[in-house]
Amino acid sequence: MKIKYELKKKSKNARLGILHTNYGSYETPMFMPVGTQATVKTLSPEELKSLNSAVILSNTYHLWLRPGEDVVDHAGGLHKFMNYNGPILTDSGGFQVFSLSKPEWITEEGVKFKSHLNGEELLLTPEKSIEIQNKLDSDIAMSFDECIGFPHTREYVEESVERTLRWAKRGKEVFNNPNQSLFGIVQGAEYEDLRRHCVEELVKMDFDGYSIGGTAVGEPKDVQYRQVEYSCKYLPEDKVRYLMGVGDPIDIIENVSRGVDIFDCVAPTRLARHGNAYTKTGKINIKNAKYKEDFTPLDDCDCYTCKNYTKAYIRHLIVANESFGQRLLSIHNIRFLIKLTEDIREAIKEDRLEEYKEEFIKKYYNKKA
Amino acid sequence: MKIKYELKKKSKNARLGILHTNYGSYETPMFMPVGTQATVKTLSPEELKSLNSAVILSNTYHLWLRPGEDVVDHAGGLHKFMNYNGPILTDSGGFQVFSLSKPEWITEEGVKFKSHLNGEELLLTPEKSIEIQNKLDSDIAMSFDECIGFPHTREYVEESVERTLRWAKRGKEVFNNPNQSLFGIVQGAEYEDLRRHCVEELVKMDFDGYSIGGTAVGEPKDVQYRQVEYSCKYLPEDKVRYLMGVGDPIDIIENVSRGVDIFDCVAPTRLARHGNAYTKTGKINIKNAKYKEDFTPLDDCDCYTCKNYTKAYIRHLIVANESFGQRLLSIHNIRFLIKLTEDIREAIKEDRLEEYKEEFIKKYYNKKA
Repeated sequence: MKIKYELKKKSKNARLGILHTNYGSYETPMFMPVGTQATVKTLSPEELKSLNSAVILSNTYHLWLRPGEDVVDHAGGLHKFMNYNGPILTDSGGFQVFSLSKPEWITEEGVKFKSHLNGEELLLTPEKSIEIQNKLDSDIAMSFDECIGFPHTREYVEESVERTLRWAKRGKEVFNNPNQSLFGIVQGAEYEDLRRHCVEELVKMDFDGYSIGGTAVGEPKDVQYRQVEYSCKYLPEDKVRYLMGVGDPIDIIENVSRGVDIFDCVAPTRLARHGNAYTKTGKINIKNAKYKEDFTPLDDCDCYTCKNYTKAYIRHLIVANESFGQRLLSIHNIRFLIKLTEDIREAIKEDRLEEYKEEFIKKYYNKKA
Repeated sequence: MKIKYELKKKSKNARLGILHTNYGSYETPMFMPVGTQATVKTLSPEELKSLNSAVILSNTYHLWLRPGEDVVDHAGGLHKFMNYNGPILTDSGGFQVFSLSKPEWITEEGVKFKSHLNGEELLLTPEKSIEIQNKLDSDIAMSFDECIGFPHTREYVEESVERTLRWAKRGKEVFNNPNQSLFGIVQGAEYEDLRRHCVEELVKMDFDGYSIGGTAVGEPKDVQYRQVEYSCKYLPEDKVRYLMGVGDPIDIIENVSRGVDIFDCVAPTRLARHGNAYTKTGKINIKNAKYKEDFTPLDDCDCYTCKNYTKAYIRHLIVANESFGQRLLSIHNIRFLIKLTEDIREAIKEDRLEEYKEEFIKKYYNKKA
């Protein structure tokens, strides 16, 4: 089936909703953990479920290169391949083509680039991206867009938005998987008229949901928030909105208050690999010597890690390069962001998101002061 | 409490028994997974329990260097530090001093060597090894012995056995933890009279159990089996016998038939890191291209990995360097050896260990032929 978004309540621009998928219905706003290579680094599917995770994201670019979409297809699709009995969203590969590889040229046809694995020259087109995602059989696929960095000239953004729209159309035309939904991606940088134009043209094509792109590419926070405002202002209320690549706790709250429903970010697992943990009083690095004999949990938190392990033990594991340490930190960090969205949903229900934000920020930054 | 060994049945020289510990009673023969740095690589304590794991081994040398025995002591001991609610055995550090570091000299006092982490010059003595282990508060501690390689002259072995005996005595004299048991280590290489002498002198000191050392140091199989025979022949029936560092499936069966009760080996987790899996029809390397689209489990096995994942997926994870792949292989490999000991116990109960061995070997090696 196609996903369905059910708007339950608005509190100013913040939305409380339910996303109905092939694998159950889940409340939004939600945070999606990232499973780049068909695995959320170090975690089992059961652990993800225990964190109250709903949709997870997997990367088309990586799976295309390795193991190849045909292997996943022959396995019976991504859910069966990775044993994940929950909804999966795949990106288009566009972001990775621009960030991991040096794109050699961008033309009307698509993007030619070199594989980050072996330097092989490859071409990713809107049709190819959809064909791969159709085979991966994720629940939600993304249109292939041009992911421009920051900053850019208005002229370039104008051209790029038109190209992204033509690519969205081409992808939609070849899209061929009745169990999968397809999202259009809103570009247009920080120009309200271009964002509006992009939204209106995408809505004419009638996608199952909409992503907000061009964020998390190095832009200042105020620019990101404006980009989101300019997109949400024109997006239809009856479709879900996914802000790509954004997962900083403050950014989640800020963008929910601007109308975003879904977030994803590699930060919780990437931070874990470097020994970092979110806490209610700010991020900490567990390698710090002051945690050597700190026999308290990372945070006041309901996750497996915080219920069972001390900072001193996690510090030991990370310092000793034991992957169980990354696993414990990943569990906590992902749970931290999922719990954040749970608290945000409660705040929206009670029309006190603004107060929640102020309290959260005060506590989160105080530690660092 | 001190551990107690209860001999339930003998079938020729093979022994079926029960090991009573501070953390429950467990049947022997048993295989101990190795948690070198206070973690069995990639696995949680709950996963270990689900594999029917009983005692685990942790390494004194590693924990002494990092995080330091005082940190573990202040955490309330190794069980609390690593959240393992089952019995733990610690080695003496001797093996690591000889294998990981270049010992600079061996004297009556102990062994001077350089830390493999930072080159720091350190001295490990029998007293120091026991002091560290007392603080780690494992359930079973090992005497500090001289771990000689293979081969050696008879003259050297004679000297070394006497030194090991003097070190065992010194360690026993300073031993000071009423909740911990202490094992003596039988050395003497492949000389029956020296093994016998070593056993007799250790038994006079009355240890809580006995380890067989000088194995898994590069000796041929027939030498290993002889060393075990020469040791078991003289060891008391009422104490448990632990063969150090041996974990090859065939060696487990062979040495059980010679009277060994406990085994440990890093192989299951080390093999996992390199993409290897035990199967009933021999070891396989999952990176082999033939598994690319093999959507069957690793083996006919009751473990989490085999119940939920295919060779193709595990291959993808290992090739993509995803630690979840190591975790899945570690789960399977450890379960393989634990299941092997379960089957061995059944075979002993039914007096058919010899037949079991023949069947196992036939199947295990046929694949390779």
